[in-house]
Amino acid sequence: MPVLTKLDQLRIVLVDARNPLNIGAAARAMSNFGFRHLRVVNPYEVAFQGARSAVKAADVLANAEKFETVADAVADCSLVVGTTAVGHRDLQHTLHRLDVGAAIIRAQIPSAPCALLFGSEKFGLSNKDMSHCHWLMHIPTREDHFSMNLGQAVAVCLYELIRDPVAPVKPEKGSPATSAELERITEALFAALRASGYPKLNSSDSFESAVRRMVRRLHLDSGDSEFLLGMLRQMVWKIEKEQK
Amino acid sequence: MPVLTKLDQLRIVLVDARNPLNIGAAARAMSNFGFRHLRVVNPYEVAFQGARSAVKAADVLANAEKFETVADAVADCSLVVGTTAVGHRDLQHTLHRLDVGAAIIRAQIPSAPCALLFGSEKFGLSNKDMSHCHWLMHIPTREDHFSMNLGQAVAVCLYELIRDPVAPVKPEKGSPATSAELERITEALFAALRASGYPKLNSSDSFESAVRRMVRRLHLDSGDSEFLLGMLRQMVWKIEKEQK
Repeated sequence: MPVLTKLDQLRIVLVDARNPLNIGAAARAMSNFGFRHLRVVNPYEVAFQGARSAVKAADVLANAEKFETVADAVADCSLVVGTTAVGHRDLQHTLHRLDVGAAIIRAQIPSAPCALLFGSEKFGLSNKDMSHCHWLMHIPTREDHFSMNLGQAVAVCLYELIRDPVAPVKPEKGSPATSAELERITEALFAALRASGYPKLNSSDSFESAVRRMVRRLHLDSGDSEFLLGMLRQMVWKIEKEQK
Repeated sequence: MPVLTKLDQLRIVLVDARNPLNIGAAARAMSNFGFRHLRVVNPYEVAFQGARSAVKAADVLANAEKFETVADAVADCSLVVGTTAVGHRDLQHTLHRLDVGAAIIRAQIPSAPCALLFGSEKFGLSNKDMSHCHWLMHIPTREDHFSMNLGQAVAVCLYELIRDPVAPVKPEKGSPATSAELERITEALFAALRASGYPKLNSSDSFESAVRRMVRRLHLDSGDSEFLLGMLRQMVWKIEKEQK
């Protein structure tokens, strides 16, 4: 088998999965290719229990973790990648084709936990789900029929990840910020914007998502994210103090 | 989509398939990746009819052909490749890993029809089925769990067939911020830090340099840098206003 060091660092996250067969199929592909950490966010409960009892890949399913939100499911991950079938909406993210994206994930995996997100069978990932992602990845399917079966999409992505890399990409310096660190910055930034009366703040969810995405595009490492967080908190503190 | 010339020359042959969901899943993956010729040999009749009526990828299924024997199903093909999970028997054939085998198939497809055979869910291809093959191909799975779901195995093989051998890396979205834009952000950040009484500000040149370097590490594009600049200026304006 091709070697991917530390497969354990990859978390496969199924968001809003509805069909037990698909959850089971995802677990089976994970077992086939040597991945162990399955996370499900807000699954249809019957489906999740059905999958647990029904299929092969028992180990992966028995150890699957359930989360209420995407934020919780990816909190310990420094790279969060969403999958999308494209074609159906304007994307706000950088979009990599599977082979290119997989090379980036492979390069990052040895140094920090990564999450790979798959959306529901019917709708894929929502814009809010995607706002937790650093970038998106798509499988190069036909334009006339781009939407893949969930279990098959998981299998294809994992296969690409364990393929022998021809040209290994160099890992970046410094340990990348975790999603929890990035979310703290996002929160501090919102607090500063609220305190300073930033005009677009109350307009909609979409502004919040836009800010969250921007923070994920900053390529912050842990050191820089602490640096930035300190600055933002100082600003918030000052504004609030002056207003009293 | 990566170009595989004459995808039409490949026949996907399912031998003894028993589960309609798997036949449907195979057809769906074929449709996703642009293959059209599905052939089934000795299917469980109920499964075949069930698949025809149940799933997406209707065109592929509607045009699927049924054969009594493997010999009939591959009669017009000049290359016949069997898939196997290995591990469970002595093989008499040359065995190629998927990526190597796919390259051979890709090279042959433009000149003559090829067949790719998948066996039943439980037993795979029989020795007799394999005897119709020129060579065999396997997906590089884990030794402890080598047996893949049929629909997933088809998806992974077809994906490998349509992969671009040389993948051009897509540039990220947006043009990168110019140094002038980055410097405006740096200035706005200093202004915000000064206004909010950030403690390390007056210590030395080295702090200023550290902030400037950090801003350069953010990989900002022009759009994001304008976004961030607007936020910082709002904070500065608010702090200064409150202090008056």
